[in-house]
Amino acid sequence: MANSKYEYVKAFEQPDLLLPNTWIVVRIDGRGFHKFSSKYAFEKPNDRRALDLMNAAAKAVMSELPDIVIAYGISDEYSFVFHKSCMLFERRESKLVTTIVSTFTAHFVLLWNLYFPELPLSPPLPSFDGRAVLYPSVQNLRDYMSWRQVDCHINNLYNTTFWALIQMGGLDAKEAEKELAGSAAADKHETLFSRFKINYNNEPDMYKKGSVVFRDYELVEPGSVSEVVDEDFAKTIEQLELSKSQEEKDRKRRAKAIITIQHVDIIKDEFWERRPWLLSNKPGKIPKEP
Amino acid sequence: MANSKYEYVKAFEQPDLLLPNTWIVVRIDGRGFHKFSSKYAFEKPNDRRALDLMNAAAKAVMSELPDIVIAYGISDEYSFVFHKSCMLFERRESKLVTTIVSTFTAHFVLLWNLYFPELPLSPPLPSFDGRAVLYPSVQNLRDYMSWRQVDCHINNLYNTTFWALIQMGGLDAKEAEKELAGSAAADKHETLFSRFKINYNNEPDMYKKGSVVFRDYELVEPGSVSEVVDEDFAKTIEQLELSKSQEEKDRKRRAKAIITIQHVDIIKDEFWERRPWLLSNKPGKIPKEP
Amino acid sequence: MANSKYEYVKAFEQPDLLLPNTWIVVRIDGRGFHKFSSKYAFEKPNDRRALDLMNAAAKAVMSELPDIVIAYGISDEYSFVFHKSCMLFERRESKLVTTIVSTFTAHFVLLWNLYFPELPLSPPLPSFDGRAVLYPSVQNLRDYMSWRQVDCHINNLYNTTFWALIQMGGLDAKEAEKELAGSAAADKHETLFSRFKINYNNEPDMYKKGSVVFRDYELVEPGSVSEVVDEDFAKTIEQLELSKSQEEKDRKRRAKAIITIQHVDIIKDEFWERRPWLLSNKPGKIPKEP
Amino acid sequence: MANSKYEYVKAFEQPDLLLPNTWIVVRIDGRGFHKFSSKYAFEKPNDRRALDLMNAAAKAVMSELPDIVIAYGISDEYSFVFHKSCMLFERRESKLVTTIVSTFTAHFVLLWNLYFPELPLSPPLPSFDGRAVLYPSVQNLRDYMSWRQVDCHINNLYNTTFWALIQMGGLDAKEAEKELAGSAAADKHETLFSRFKINYNNEPDMYKKGSVVFRDYELVEPGSVSEVVDEDFAKTIEQLELSKSQEEKDRKRRAKAIITIQHVDIIKDEFWERRPWLLSNKPGKIPKEP
Repeated sequence: MANSKYEYVKAFEQPDLLLPNTWIVVRIDGRGFHKFSSKYAFEKPNDRRALDLMNAAAKAVMSELPDIVIAYGISDEYSFVFHKSCMLFERRESKLVTTIVSTFTAHFVLLWNLYFPELPLSPPLPSFDGRAVLYPSVQNLRDYMSWRQVDCHINNLYNTTFWALIQMGGLDAKEAEKELAGSAAADKHETLFSRFKINYNNEPDMYKKGSVVFRDYELVEPGSVSEVVDEDFAKTIEQLELSKSQEEKDRKRRAKAIITIQHVDIIKDEFWERRPWLLSNKPGKIPKEP
Repeated sequence: MANSKYEYVKAFEQPDLLLPNTWIVVRIDGRGFHKFSSKYAFEKPNDRRALDLMNAAAKAVMSELPDIVIAYGISDEYSFVFHKSCMLFERRESKLVTTIVSTFTAHFVLLWNLYFPELPLSPPLPSFDGRAVLYPSVQNLRDYMSWRQVDCHINNLYNTTFWALIQMGGLDAKEAEKELAGSAAADKHETLFSRFKINYNNEPDMYKKGSVVFRDYELVEPGSVSEVVDEDFAKTIEQLELSKSQEEKDRKRRAKAIITIQHVDIIKDEFWERRPWLLSNKPGKIPKEP
Repeated sequence: MANSKYEYVKAFEQPDLLLPNTWIVVRIDGRGFHKFSSKYAFEKPNDRRALDLMNAAAKAVMSELPDIVIAYGISDEYSFVFHKSCMLFERRESKLVTTIVSTFTAHFVLLWNLYFPELPLSPPLPSFDGRAVLYPSVQNLRDYMSWRQVDCHINNLYNTTFWALIQMGGLDAKEAEKELAGSAAADKHETLFSRFKINYNNEPDMYKKGSVVFRDYELVEPGSVSEVVDEDFAKTIEQLELSKSQEEKDRKRRAKAIITIQHVDIIKDEFWERRPWLLSNKPGKIPKEP
Repeated sequence: MANSKYEYVKAFEQPDLLLPNTWIVVRIDGRGFHKFSSKYAFEKPNDRRALDLMNAAAKAVMSELPDIVIAYGISDEYSFVFHKSCMLFERRESKLVTTIVSTFTAHFVLLWNLYFPELPLSPPLPSFDGRAVLYPSVQNLRDYMSWRQVDCHINNLYNTTFWALIQMGGLDAKEAEKELAGSAAADKHETLFSRFKINYNNEPDMYKKGSVVFRDYELVEPGSVSEVVDEDFAKTIEQLELSKSQEEKDRKRRAKAIITIQHVDIIKDEFWERRPWLLSNKPGKIPKEP
């Protein structure tokens, strides 16, 4: 029994290959997490357990998908970056996005009990949507990362002040919102300090700077390596062959590397200059064990 | 501190609204399930527990996303159908696909213990990729569904014979493959019956026909309702208002309906004619309780 | 000398196949025709020569591209419709759109002297942009055509009144605009009649209804043919073979048919019912010569 | 009379904004030019009049669309390059491609008589199709240009030898094709020289290298300007304001520049280094008149 009569329906599938030689960012977001965080009584303004769970899931995603160069998370969102030279799944958009979303969700759900042992999950279960965005240049990519980290800072300063006004100042949500309307960053620092003795600068870096996930090699002295060269996309067939065996070696060094989660500034050049492997996609040196 | 300096990166996001007035099929597939099924020693040719788990996850997806009209599953794949009039998430492709993939994954992982209590999950976790395909006409959509069910039949007959040759006939995989090469359906029936006393027609419908998931209303006598009319996409503003309140009522009737899983023929007209709510998107009558 | 070193750049070309089984409308628009019509002193509100030239170019396009079923033009825009079963250029969007735009432009420029013999073209030359839009159902397609014809009516009634106020009423553009602001259709009819003795209903149909271009076969009595059946997109290989020879016959009958330009109502059913070949894509009877 | 009832059809129009910060190449090709060149008896292997006409049309396109940085033509094809920072038509793909195709066609048809005075055009008229391709990096763009120029070289060497074998060697097309099958470049040079006393190197540059069209400013000494810096896509609002007035100045300098057509090597670095305005999009110095 041949299936030819119906097989024409395959012609309706549209290709979705992402433009080559561009950075791929897959950003995922918790669906309806406002409601979800109420249901499980997340602490405000930040729930340490929830953030640790997000980070653990992101780390697992990076571990299962070695093509991911770096990831950055704040609140219930996470951005995963594929190098512009990445050819995983032939750069099929749906495949890249859904694989990340599914792998993240699987780990989030399975690890839930570890972080919220007293609060078993019940439907509707936590879920995440996601989408891919392309960035042609390193500058565009870094500006994307900076955009997310600035957003983290703005939101966290606001939320920290907002919840201090409620939890320590006795205001209700509407009053707190009104008080903060139009206030500058300095005003919020001042409010926190003068009224609640909170020095915002002493807040945990995880809350202020978000979480950066990447493979950890030996740091490089700034200036010691030549500028990251924007390499050609592809050259002769011979070079492609060569690069395949190189790729295999790289894959092994990536597998050996430890995936780290840090809460550091990714806006300034220093972060990127000391970790040239992030933008070059060439694995660095595995640090010697002490 | 404004975020304007970096916000330009949002301009790189590309819209992905699916063409209106077309049926949306989101098909998800288990990633690397060949390896996965070995790891957890799935029974061959069909593992009842794994299929029940797939079906339970699909049912949960339909329950969380009432816009889904019908779903059809075989092996480690599931197709979810949104009505052509569906406007969920403004028909944004990424959002529709990732939401289904994520929700399905969440339930699959959480329900795993129920179906495989003795086999706890460990990384790499099960995950699913997915994609959307558009079908402009009812005929195209039904041909898609028929395509999947014919595939189910072809694969199951092959697999049943293949594994009988191995498990009962003592062949190894290569020998079984060779024996089956070029054989017609009748040959396989004959092989099963004459050598292993297996009447293929007595195999469980779940294996032969796959699983159909839908909301269960009172069946309709064929011919008792007028042909499903292909309605206009939208009319006047007044009618849109009207249809909004109607939509609200429909939503409630959908919520009350029981989601059923059946293993029936969806190629013939009868299935669709007796369940006009599937193609019309108008909820049927809730059956009276006995 | 092989070209392999650079050929990788072809991988950056993205496919652009239009979804099968949907009606394709390619609409083209004159670029900067407001300025262009001033340069060549087009008559207001309608320049008969310019409209005749548009129609002649559209007719030539239909003659060179027999796959076009029908075209509809108003002012400096023209919509060309490909049948939903059309596979011309494998339905590649760029190819379909640019071919129509280029062929239209070529004829427009070459025929210019015939319609404006005293006004030779000089740079910047007239040019047209274009785009494709997909419509899944006949209803959607007809609503598109109706939308353009209603637009024609609204614009022409406005322009006729606007220019009467200026040319016969002595108002300047600002005064005319102000006078018409918020006026209903009936008000404009009244203004035309009471102040300028113009009965709008007596205006030429070309101005009021636009121009409809199609192949002319024998009209059919309404009700004499069964409803146009929405056929399957494709069936067995055998049927495809069959349909290929049928297609060849159809092509010949299309080539023999006369392309006509009419100024008639395309909103009501009658136009479509009496010309079933437009929606069925089956050529009609060539009328016997007298 | 409002048009609201039908206006919903606008929702079927899909956006087609090209990814920002990427080079846009629009390549157009003559449709059916094999047949077309027979009809008008083009000289083989190159018809000088036809190439001059292509070049004149391309020059006119660049003159009407100052956003085009450079164009490159061979045979019946032309590639037009927009700078990666170009925002013309908001980077709408259809609009960019059809505008180039239409403007090119208009000039080609209108100028035809100048180059083929004895051969008036008759239907089917010459027409061109076109498509856009995106290149993220300067290297990709230059590799694209090199690809086309290498193609020009390969084709012209082949065609020159092929037609020499026919026109001077008395072979028919099949024999010539057979003789050339598998021959290396050196073989073709040898054939041309030993049998027909043709030194391929003395063939006109226009045939060997194609035609490069660009705005002509004062050449720059290699090394005298710092490397072209890959600038950020956009920065603060203030800088955007600044750049708008700068843009206005640039526009004026572009309008003053003379558009030149040259037949030179665009594969080597020198061409690009001496004309930094091509990749930087900053107009150069207008040469002083003598």
